This record gives sequence, C-alpha cells and structure tokens, in this order.
Amino acid sequence: MMISSSSNAKVKQIIRWRDRAGERRRDGVFIAEGIKMLEEAPEEDILEVYVSESALNRIAEKNEAVADKLKGHSFAAVKDDIFARMSDTCTPQGIITVMRRREYEAEDMLCAGDPLLLVLESLQDPGNLGTIIRTAEGAGVSGVIMNPQTVDIYNPKTIRATMGSIYRVPFAYADNLCELIAKCRKKGIHTYAAHLDGKNCYCEHSFSGPTAFIIGNEGNGLTGELADSADTFIRIPMEGRVESLNAAVAAALLMYEAHRQRSL
Amino acid sequence: MMISSSSNAKVKQIIRWRDRAGERRRDGVFIAEGIKMLEEAPEEDILEVYVSESALNRIAEKNEAVADKLKGHSFAAVKDDIFARMSDTCTPQGIITVMRRREYEAEDMLCAGDPLLLVLESLQDPGNLGTIIRTAEGAGVSGVIMNPQTVDIYNPKTIRATMGSIYRVPFAYADNLCELIAKCRKKGIHTYAAHLDGKNCYCEHSFSGPTAFIIGNEGNGLTGELADSADTFIRIPMEGRVESLNAAVAAALLMYEAHRQRSL
Repeated sequence: MMISSSSNAKVKQIIRWRDRAGERRRDGVFIAEGIKMLEEAPEEDILEVYVSESALNRIAEKNEAVADKLKGHSFAAVKDDIFARMSDTCTPQGIITVMRRREYEAEDMLCAGDPLLLVLESLQDPGNLGTIIRTAEGAGVSGVIMNPQTVDIYNPKTIRATMGSIYRVPFAYADNLCELIAKCRKKGIHTYAAHLDGKNCYCEHSFSGPTAFIIGNEGNGLTGELADSADTFIRIPMEGRVESLNAAVAAALLMYEAHRQRSL
Repeated sequence: MMISSSSNAKVKQIIRWRDRAGERRRDGVFIAEGIKMLEEAPEEDILEVYVSESALNRIAEKNEAVADKLKGHSFAAVKDDIFARMSDTCTPQGIITVMRRREYEAEDMLCAGDPLLLVLESLQDPGNLGTIIRTAEGAGVSGVIMNPQTVDIYNPKTIRATMGSIYRVPFAYADNLCELIAKCRKKGIHTYAAHLDGKNCYCEHSFSGPTAFIIGNEGNGLTGELADSADTFIRIPMEGRVESLNAAVAAALLMYEAHRQRSL
C-alpha cells in the first residue's frame, strides 16, 4: 500500500515531529532523513521507515546495502509529492526514519576513564551543532554536554549535519553548566574556556589528562559567569582582523589538538 | 528621500545582483549585507549603501561607529517592507552595501614569500566556503584558489559567512587546478592533498616551507586527477565510524596546523 494523501495521519505526524521540538520530546523520538542516516541507524532504535516511490525503485536497482536494510523492516512507501511535504530538504533522498531517542547521563560522562568532554553554551545554529557532533566523534570525544538554551540537538538540520555521529556520540543537557563545571573539578577534570582573554594559545597546554572544553554562543561567546567558573582560559590565535572563528571550527581545533596530543 | 516602492529600479537591481551570479560578474560588484560587513568594508570599494528606516533610527541612537561611517557616504533610506525584499536574510540587520570587486591573480599568490595556499575543488556549500575564507584569514593563509565549479564566492551567504574576511583574503579562480599544481611545483611550493588514502597523519608533516593544501568537494572529495597531481597525500585521523569531516573543519585543521608549526 502506498501513502498518497497529505491528510494521512502518519504524514501529519512526521511533519509535526519534524517541526516541533516539544512533540518530539514528548514522544521520545526524532526524525533522521537521508540514506546514510538509515544505513547507520542502530537496528534496535528504528521505529518507522518511510520511502518515496522513486527512491524505492532507485534503491532496488542500485543500493544493495540499503535494500537489505529495508527488507529487515516494515516500511511505508510514499508518493513522491507527499514525501516532498514530509521532507526537511529541497532535494530529498527519499528516506525518512523515525528513531527512538537514547538517553545518556552527564554524570556517566564525567566518570569515564580519561574523559575528553565538550561543553556548549547556548549554541544557536543547528548546522554548527551537527558539525560539532560529527567532529567530536572523529576526534574521540567521550561526551558533549549542552545547556537547555542550546538549539535542540534533534533539530532535523542538526541530525543531518552529524552524518550519523548522532547515533554514537554520547550527549546530554545540563540545567546549570556552572554546577557541571564544579562537578568536573571534583572529578579531576580540567576545564578550559575558549576565550579571547586567554593568555596562552591552546597549543601551549597539555590536554592528555581528563579535559573539558567550554565553547560559547556564536555571536556573544561565553557568559562571564560560565567563563569565570573554568580553570583556565585558552586562546585560539587569529591573524589579520579576525575577531572570532566559527563555533564549529573553534571546537574542532581544540578537540583535534587534544586528539593529536593523546596520539603522540 | 525614502525608497518606498518595490518597482524602484535600484531595488530591482539589488535583487538581481543578490540572486544572479552572472549579473554580479558582468557589473563587477557584490552585495555585502549586515552591519559588520559595512563597518569593515574598504572605503574605496563601497559603491552604494542602503539602510532600512528602522535601522537608521537604531544606528543613530546606538552605534556611533556605523553612524560615522554612514555620514561619509551618500546612502539611500528604504522602507522596512521594501528592504525585507532586498535582503537575503529572514531577520535583516537593515544595511546592504554594494561593493566593487577586487581582482587578484593566482600567479601573484604563488610568488609571495613563504606562501600558505588553500586550493579548493568544486566546493558546493556557500556557508562552508565563507567559513573557510574567515578561517583562512585567522590562520594567516596567503591566498585561496578555486576551480570554476566551486560555488560563487560572491554568493550573499558566502559573503556573510566570511564575517568581513572577504575584504582581506586574496582569492582567485583557476580554470585548471592540475596546471596550477604544476606551477606550484615549479615555484617550490609543496602540495598536500587531504585524502583518505594518506599514509601519514597531517601532524607528521612539516608545513613551515611554502605549502599548498588541496581540499575536495563535500560529498565526493578530490577527483583522482587532481589528487594524483599533488606531491603528498595527508590524512586527518578519525575515530569511531566517521568517514569524513565537514570541508570547512578539515580545511581549518590543516591551516591551523601550519599556523601552529610556523609560530613555534
């Protein structure tokens, strides 16, 4: 059976989950769109799969791995014009997967052996956050902790930008990041605030022990209160007239410097 | 006099320059939107300035630096609803500047002392390209060279993402990147292709001499022909199941590793 009406209850539900963070949260789900996002999805967390009519034909012909994955699930086929309404992209790949959320505890991240943590304050750009999660997996980060003012990590744009890392990088929201930093200190995790007032370049510090990097909002940087709670300010050097770097770039430089040092 | 009609010839021209790369090129201009983009604009390249009615009031009250800059130019005031049509953003800051283009020559970049170059093949995301230009200035890159298949650097989204670096980082398009790499070799510039097949991590190479990094398209990486023309493949190590990094992140890691080494 093919879904061919935009008044179909499932279609309406997908659109609400796509657009409404509160409804996603209430139902404990998120929307993962695209072929790669289905390929990498942990089997046990897949709840529903929707495939557009044209994608169904393409996949059967050309993409055995995805065809096999689809065989293992019940899925709903959707007429292309209806699928376009469900999609969050202008050029849909033709697969939408509804995923069950995983819950992680910030406390567990603090107790891992030799943690490398990323603490994000009020990041607003969904693409930036997704890129940070993707880079965090690449750099071997053990967990990402955000305040509730940070953009919803389950925003469909964020999910796509993670390129699948959302399934593998532990993350959690903490109501009060200053309290979190205090907990880090108790656990022996050194906290570094990326800050223009940092005396030393980030390359001059050792991140081989338990480490947390704190990154602020794209436009305003870190709030004074959170910055002051950190053990050390570190600076990313900038030539020319550059006043700051993109938040995902700044986070990447710090995470990969820690990775470099830990690989020596 | 206040522009209050969307049929105003200037309004129509701005919209065409915003949307049409060919028309921007023909007229030798580009559109820089936002307060920071006017603040940092080189005086001699400013052709026209448009300010929305509400921004005019805000700036007079709150932003002396921009008010002073505006005094030095003739500018046109625009009714808010008309300005919204000219703007490329959902929440316009109320300033649009028409800038004269600067022309740089790739040849000059190759001849600079101790060059640090970035070569981009077919990058497609305007935001990524802008972030790369911004990071390039921060890392002290001497020039960015792109093939004609790369997204137009004068795309309004790219311009905004540069946060003003577009005014200061030399860039050029080269019809044939393989020929460019051959010229680099003649000039003693070592060329490194960011590539999954790289045997060595990028951190294991010295970039203190004349260096060019070659970065490929977001989805497909470098073409075989261009990769093969490079002196050395370098790999960015990735943990977990990450297959690649965001192009702006990958470029940033390489540029800043060169910056780190050159600062030692």
